Amino acid sequence: MKRKARHPLVLALAVVAGLAFGTQALAQSDPLPSWNEGAAKQAIVKFVEATTTQGSPKFVPPAERIATFDQDGTLWVEHPMYSQIVYCFDRVPVVVKAKPELANVEPFKTVMSGNREAIAKLSMDDVFKILAATLTGMSVEDFRTEAKKWLDSARDPRWKRPYTELTYAPMQEVLKYLRANGYRTYIVTGGGQDFVRMYADEVYGIPPEQVVGTASGTKYGYTKNGKPFLTKEPKLLLNDNNAGKPEGIYLMIGRRPYAAFGNSTGDRQMLEYTKAGAGERLAMLVLHDDAQREYAYGPAQGLPATKVGTFTQALYDQATREGWVVISMKSDWKRIFTFEP
Amino acid sequence: MKRKARHPLVLALAVVAGLAFGTQALAQSDPLPSWNEGAAKQAIVKFVEATTTQGSPKFVPPAERIATFDQDGTLWVEHPMYSQIVYCFDRVPVVVKAKPELANVEPFKTVMSGNREAIAKLSMDDVFKILAATLTGMSVEDFRTEAKKWLDSARDPRWKRPYTELTYAPMQEVLKYLRANGYRTYIVTGGGQDFVRMYADEVYGIPPEQVVGTASGTKYGYTKNGKPFLTKEPKLLLNDNNAGKPEGIYLMIGRRPYAAFGNSTGDRQMLEYTKAGAGERLAMLVLHDDAQREYAYGPAQGLPATKVGTFTQALYDQATREGWVVISMKSDWKRIFTFEP
Repeated sequence: MKRKARHPLVLALAVVAGLAFGTQALAQSDPLPSWNEGAAKQAIVKFVEATTTQGSPKFVPPAERIATFDQDGTLWVEHPMYSQIVYCFDRVPVVVKAKPELANVEPFKTVMSGNREAIAKLSMDDVFKILAATLTGMSVEDFRTEAKKWLDSARDPRWKRPYTELTYAPMQEVLKYLRANGYRTYIVTGGGQDFVRMYADEVYGIPPEQVVGTASGTKYGYTKNGKPFLTKEPKLLLNDNNAGKPEGIYLMIGRRPYAAFGNSTGDRQMLEYTKAGAGERLAMLVLHDDAQREYAYGPAQGLPATKVGTFTQALYDQATREGWVVISMKSDWKRIFTFEP
Repeated sequence: MKRKARHPLVLALAVVAGLAFGTQALAQSDPLPSWNEGAAKQAIVKFVEATTTQGSPKFVPPAERIATFDQDGTLWVEHPMYSQIVYCFDRVPVVVKAKPELANVEPFKTVMSGNREAIAKLSMDDVFKILAATLTGMSVEDFRTEAKKWLDSARDPRWKRPYTELTYAPMQEVLKYLRANGYRTYIVTGGGQDFVRMYADEVYGIPPEQVVGTASGTKYGYTKNGKPFLTKEPKLLLNDNNAGKPEGIYLMIGRRPYAAFGNSTGDRQMLEYTKAGAGERLAMLVLHDDAQREYAYGPAQGLPATKVGTFTQALYDQATREGWVVISMKSDWKRIFTFEP
């Protein structure tokens, strides 16, 4: 079929109309399609509009647009156990192979026994011993090689997928929406800074310099050939949990966030610190109330108690009192994961 | 005189020609006009071209373009004494007024005496006591208020100007040139992180989150009204000097720099660490060999020895051996300060 010739002016007008239509379509497209309509979604959109619209009384200059996100339980699944802890326990056989004398020393002996009941009963002190033995004492390059191998091969017990696929689609949308509006997104995690930096760029689009986490020191030294390298030391520099979160933000960013997202009592101080700033600030907490699609735990709102990502009723009440927004996974999120049908 | 009317097409062509001319003029304009032609200037331009030209075998993706700069003696004047030390000594009377019992305690007694000879003889331990007393024990907001007041009013003894005007014009050009080519510029200083963050944005265009420095911890707490705040604690988290520089870079940035600039033995490890990376890397050291326009100290190359910004002959020899470029203030810099006629 022969196409009808058009006058150049008609084509030009069509282009202009197309552009205008395209712009409008863009402006109207929903930046948060995995969210149900409701107070949580509204709070996010309202915050972004108030702080990024030129002339708004709550306008925030681009350089100051900082948003911080807890990771475990806020951006990805943390149950039944934090993925980094799984990594550390998985590494114990390798550590024992390198240092056979540990095979008869607790807590390594218990971990090697494979006795799940005994392992579940290990004290926090024992867990710290396992973290120190598996996360320190090697060069930062060796750590990266080992962690990458594990991240590529390990599978979550429930979904049988790499841990890095278990991120929440609605939160990925929030990250992108904030960045599209000039916000720099940071992870502020109780997890290990080095561990999270391994995959944060690929998984969340968050580069290493925007990951603040629990950090141990490193020690500068030289190989036999005189090449400098850094060794991970068992010396805690920053315990990036609870009060450590605002302290870590001050140390690593030096600016108060305008928005902060968490899901547990470990995030309380970060949210308080964020809301204590002048102007419009957003504080949000993810409540895991969806046992069917993910997990349900609190003990806030009568949900089952947990030691992993505890969300107390006191935290829930503080959120209500101080204008923080609680996100109900069950009712606010249309879908949880991108791999859902 | 009546202007001759021109055909719109002629005007349009003139505009296009003007744009083309403007672009070419921009491309050809010298990004480093305060530098004399020579090996140092060439090394900078060659590095930028090799790492930022698409298709170059040494091309570095924008996200990895990190350049780190020592501050004292590299970006601004450090003689006769680091400006932050001057600040701390200037603060002693205020601290003693708040805690009168210190008036009879050393080293505060000596500082209050005004006896310059005795003050010059204070030990490093005494100096650390003064730093702790004047930089910690207050809220981060109170610290900022005090430091700002001082920065606005204090004058350097030689040029009688605010310390913040004593930055080196050639280095300001390097910062801008690198940023114009997609590099993120960081300060990595032995000085106090909080102190340098006060003015780095205004003076160097370097935002707080890109200042890595010697850092003490903070402690999260609440006012009587329940408002959260951070107190500066006398607990050293990062001694960002010598080996502490690559350790600090790893902690705060998590990427190895492609270019690093320093001027003293305290920068050695940062330069080694930078050069140990793969691909094209740039390491440069400013040598203060211009007593007339600034200061002359080493003791490298027979220059007078100093305790402030020591540049040893061993460092000079290492630079020669390992392909680091030494910048001679005297012969490489056309001008030192922007306020020069």
